[in-house]
Amino acid sequence: MKKVAYLGIPGSYSFAAANFYFTKKAMFVKNDSIKEAITRVSSSACTFGVVPLENTTTGSIAETFDNLLESNLSIVGEIILHIHHNLLTDKKIKNAKEIKRLFSHPQAIAQCQNFIKKNKNIKIEFTSDTATAASYAAGKRDKSSAAIAAKLAADLYDLKILEKNIEDNPHNYTRFAVIAKKESFKGNKISLIFSVEHKPGSLFQTLAPYARLGLNLTKIESRPVFGKPWEYIFFIDFDIDNKEKGLTQVLHEMKEHVNFLKVLGRYEKGKIYET
Amino acid sequence: MKKVAYLGIPGSYSFAAANFYFTKKAMFVKNDSIKEAITRVSSSACTFGVVPLENTTTGSIAETFDNLLESNLSIVGEIILHIHHNLLTDKKIKNAKEIKRLFSHPQAIAQCQNFIKKNKNIKIEFTSDTATAASYAAGKRDKSSAAIAAKLAADLYDLKILEKNIEDNPHNYTRFAVIAKKESFKGNKISLIFSVEHKPGSLFQTLAPYARLGLNLTKIESRPVFGKPWEYIFFIDFDIDNKEKGLTQVLHEMKEHVNFLKVLGRYEKGKIYET
Repeated sequence: MKKVAYLGIPGSYSFAAANFYFTKKAMFVKNDSIKEAITRVSSSACTFGVVPLENTTTGSIAETFDNLLESNLSIVGEIILHIHHNLLTDKKIKNAKEIKRLFSHPQAIAQCQNFIKKNKNIKIEFTSDTATAASYAAGKRDKSSAAIAAKLAADLYDLKILEKNIEDNPHNYTRFAVIAKKESFKGNKISLIFSVEHKPGSLFQTLAPYARLGLNLTKIESRPVFGKPWEYIFFIDFDIDNKEKGLTQVLHEMKEHVNFLKVLGRYEKGKIYET
Repeated sequence: MKKVAYLGIPGSYSFAAANFYFTKKAMFVKNDSIKEAITRVSSSACTFGVVPLENTTTGSIAETFDNLLESNLSIVGEIILHIHHNLLTDKKIKNAKEIKRLFSHPQAIAQCQNFIKKNKNIKIEFTSDTATAASYAAGKRDKSSAAIAAKLAADLYDLKILEKNIEDNPHNYTRFAVIAKKESFKGNKISLIFSVEHKPGSLFQTLAPYARLGLNLTKIESRPVFGKPWEYIFFIDFDIDNKEKGLTQVLHEMKEHVNFLKVLGRYEKGKIYET
């Protein structure tokens, strides 16, 4: 059976993403950190990994890009989750007024301020992640503990969804990468990393072949290397569709202008799933 | 006296940044969220605000850019903090072995895994931020509670620094913006936001004047608007130095290619401070 490393414990958003992507039977392996999940794939303990790449609210997840850059792994798939936060409680609870303690990650709490303000008597306790929050709420004997977590966590920890979608901002999406040692070589999207010298026009020259060949950039991001003030790393994604010749040409031309270039992977654009 | 809104409570990293930047007497006003800090400046309750823009470990802070984009405020200054995590305890504690409970934000805990692994008997309790962790450690009567927080928090909460710089990765920097209603119009750096149509070459054409006029881009980042799959927003920073004429020209030429353009501010490049 395929082994898939994911970030967090059962019920985490990476766990949900992995379950949407791997529809055939697989063994899902939990991890405390992005680095641990990536290392588990590098060391061949797992064939695949599922880690977050970027979020519409918090931006790119640098830890993933940094660890992928240093690894021998490729991106082979993409999953986009529409993130919802839900109020999970014991099955006997009928109203939020019965709740005394609420567990969740600080970021989830910050994203549900309307609910928090309406329920000021509930004591908030922070956890390392939302799935742990659900497991805590389920583990308390007082029945008046609740968690803010993904819907999926309700089934896993035998809780009920007392209130759905309690997030303040409904437009919260996270993009996940499926990673593996073996490249996929096919798909309609490519991610790559490169660095150019810190001088006027260097980035522009590197991007020129995209414009000329009609390849559409869907993401571009620079990251300063703070210890080395003249070095910049760029992350780009582009659509490839049927322009196979364009791909060889664009990589060839880029290599004339970059200090460093690494194709992170070629893969099919991901579907959007509701959580 | 000038009023300065910052993210968090006394001892937070935004508080430290504000204290480094405003060397003359000012009244610092705490805020629960980035949005609250920005609103306090928009509504003229405070003249200045200090909010995080990006971090080398976690990337850009989308909440700041989103709220700045919707506001009538400008970036008028920049501060860079070299982030260190420190173990703060009661002054009577002599050794980490005496600590029973450790408070901190999940991200700070995640960034000090070497320390956590060496001290497995300490019970970890999560807080909404590191300054709150310091206040909790100080407020406990048992004297065996500690916090992971900034050095500054030790003074503020009458704790001692038992161990310095316990972070795993020494290259952790956060960039903060000083924001105000009144533009500064001077300085050697400019930040702007623009959007272009989602078609091949549109970004390239927008960047062409930078290459031609020799203006150096120091940051470029795209953000998809997930609800609107064909819209992309770009954030760029560039050096301006003495090229005043270049500035007028570049903005003029960009306007021919963009759907939308907003200068976030012109300001002096920030100094790096140790925390």
